[in-house]
Amino acid sequence: MSLSITFDSDARIASEYSASESIQGHWKSFLQTIDDEAIGFFHVNQRKELLQSCMEVFEKFQSRTQFIQVGIGGSSLGPEMLISALGDNKRQFTFMNNIDPDQLALQLDVLDHSKSLFYIVSKSGGTAETSATMAIIANWLRDKGVEEKDLKNHFVFATDPVKSDLHNLGRELGITCLEIPSNVGGRFSVLTPVGFLPALFAGIDCADLLKGAQDIKKDLLNTNLTENILIKTACYLMSLKDKGYNQTVLMPYSSRLRDLSFWFVQLWAESLGKKHNEKGEVVNTGFTPVPAYGATDQHSQVQLFMEGPYDKTLLLVEVEKFANDFKLESNFSTPSFKKLAPHTLGQLMKAELDGTISALKDADRPHLLIKMPEVSAYYLGQLILTLEALTALTGLMLSINTFDQPGVEAGKRYAFQYLEKMGPAC
Amino acid sequence: MSLSITFDSDARIASEYSASESIQGHWKSFLQTIDDEAIGFFHVNQRKELLQSCMEVFEKFQSRTQFIQVGIGGSSLGPEMLISALGDNKRQFTFMNNIDPDQLALQLDVLDHSKSLFYIVSKSGGTAETSATMAIIANWLRDKGVEEKDLKNHFVFATDPVKSDLHNLGRELGITCLEIPSNVGGRFSVLTPVGFLPALFAGIDCADLLKGAQDIKKDLLNTNLTENILIKTACYLMSLKDKGYNQTVLMPYSSRLRDLSFWFVQLWAESLGKKHNEKGEVVNTGFTPVPAYGATDQHSQVQLFMEGPYDKTLLLVEVEKFANDFKLESNFSTPSFKKLAPHTLGQLMKAELDGTISALKDADRPHLLIKMPEVSAYYLGQLILTLEALTALTGLMLSINTFDQPGVEAGKRYAFQYLEKMGPAC
Repeated sequence: MSLSITFDSDARIASEYSASESIQGHWKSFLQTIDDEAIGFFHVNQRKELLQSCMEVFEKFQSRTQFIQVGIGGSSLGPEMLISALGDNKRQFTFMNNIDPDQLALQLDVLDHSKSLFYIVSKSGGTAETSATMAIIANWLRDKGVEEKDLKNHFVFATDPVKSDLHNLGRELGITCLEIPSNVGGRFSVLTPVGFLPALFAGIDCADLLKGAQDIKKDLLNTNLTENILIKTACYLMSLKDKGYNQTVLMPYSSRLRDLSFWFVQLWAESLGKKHNEKGEVVNTGFTPVPAYGATDQHSQVQLFMEGPYDKTLLLVEVEKFANDFKLESNFSTPSFKKLAPHTLGQLMKAELDGTISALKDADRPHLLIKMPEVSAYYLGQLILTLEALTALTGLMLSINTFDQPGVEAGKRYAFQYLEKMGPAC
Repeated sequence: MSLSITFDSDARIASEYSASESIQGHWKSFLQTIDDEAIGFFHVNQRKELLQSCMEVFEKFQSRTQFIQVGIGGSSLGPEMLISALGDNKRQFTFMNNIDPDQLALQLDVLDHSKSLFYIVSKSGGTAETSATMAIIANWLRDKGVEEKDLKNHFVFATDPVKSDLHNLGRELGITCLEIPSNVGGRFSVLTPVGFLPALFAGIDCADLLKGAQDIKKDLLNTNLTENILIKTACYLMSLKDKGYNQTVLMPYSSRLRDLSFWFVQLWAESLGKKHNEKGEVVNTGFTPVPAYGATDQHSQVQLFMEGPYDKTLLLVEVEKFANDFKLESNFSTPSFKKLAPHTLGQLMKAELDGTISALKDADRPHLLIKMPEVSAYYLGQLILTLEALTALTGLMLSINTFDQPGVEAGKRYAFQYLEKMGPAC
């Protein structure tokens, strides 16, 4: 079984983008992109050795009950998604994904150094926020009596094996260093050691994640282009964009998939939000991702989605089967309880999703529905690769470079100038 | 001291909205609105008795170490914001804010009924999601041996005292029932018992929250309209909206204020996203709120904010003083550590915010900066009332009804139709 995607209207897919000549060209470029040695996200079949090395690290440190992911952006959002969707809650997970001193103080306060493993993740190996946090952790460990030579018992690194200072530092200190493939960018790295190691500590079957991603490829590469879910979705989004729909709401009806939306926010915003197109012309293009989750956001954002400007396309995600369910019968006498009593919570969730879909149809709000048979590693792997491939294909249709992020460099340069001007701390 | 708000460009405030005649009219309407007996959000001075009744409930149940907020939308987002910003981490907080059966199973699994207090919050008293969750909790308690007559030792209700079935049910079962004032809508209700009771269990000084809100009024009501931060901000946002900037990014540089953004998302989306204006004309208006937080989102959304379409106004929030700080000195030899070593984490946070502001200026991206002296109950109270008042004034300038949410009714009706069609659970 695979994910399925259904659209509110086939007419919206039929557009200049899906015209045979146009889509053939984009599709050819897509096939070239995933064949490009410099772009590795699609090649999940090449991750088995990397997974094996993560399993060895897991076996070595599996007695640790506190796992701390130290990373920002793509080094944290993927793991956050995996743990909240699939984690078994047997270990304590902490994400040191910001440089807020108060947050970090709270996080360190509940850790026991003898039970903890710090996973330092930085593709470039020089991310300022991650280096800062690692320095603080090293000082904290020193205050607990851990000597520098023993840091290797508390730290594991993940970084680019070719061009990373962190890799050199790891060798110097004897710290285990896992590999983030050079050809996989941070925001596409969840199915590499970036996500594998925390997933293993959370009891998640990484082989199933990879198998799901591998198996969905036959759908993503379906040569019948009019049946291909990837092409249909990209054409749908692009043709709506031309009509002013440049916001993309990702709204899974599942609390455990809420963090999927935040992972998608980075993937979609940072990949497609670009000033220049491939010809170097100024285009200032992109889609704005809007994170949401059901049914909760029916009591927050749905009013705007139904009645506000016509500028959003909704990607709804239905979980077809929850692992649990609850009867709603009760002795309470008031009407709201009586109406619910014959039903289950799973039925209510399904009814609310279907109700929202009907109301969206009535209000002529464009939406598609991704059906996920269940929240499992296998289907999450399918969904991850589908959304990554969708990003790459949409980037080609926008004619931008999907894999860079030039717009954040100026802010970084300024930040270091300001830091130098501040002088040393008193 | 008060919050301050500074703008990237005064020229952007000067607009047809700030023209004397226009703003005088809107301001007069605003003063009428907050004087309207049907609209109570601004009258935080009338909350002392309500706070007193919450303190009595807190005293009665203060031995409970697990506090569970059962509510959705405005019945949860405000409390989530308060607890993550200011909570003392001494008790375990759970937010049952969705109807995901898997999430609920995980949440119940870690509770001990003898240590727990369930706070059932529904303004209308008939919210389907909240009733469903309460029925499940009652069944769970029964399975633990709690008799119906003893539910009053595990539940506290908060609801409208006038027109709510939950109020009647509370009386029938002897369950303590706190009051959500009839004239305060769900998304404006954080400074009522909705937020007070969880705040008390988290060690938050609610009197300070209220004092902050009360004290900022002199700025919000400043009769020198060219100095009034509320008017300036509303004119700024509206004049930018006319130029296509209809997305509002709220981006506090603080992890503890991340949930402020989600609270704001509901306030801004549900209040301003409307099909009809006050004359009944179809306008499909509204601003789309975009939740973000720094520095983390510099590695996610900032690429889009810097280079994507010119459609966003950023509301940045700076915390001027963190309670904690950490030195970044270390023995690590690689360049990223050496550059950071003389500084502190607080300095890095400040430099990154200032760097982002400079880069936003260079890229001509509209932004304003809210300076919050520290993350405390007093200043959070100021910020809450400021954003609520901004929503009300902006609603008047959009000429829509800020306080209703007609766009979610159709989905609800459909949902109940689908539920009935499903028939009883097997």
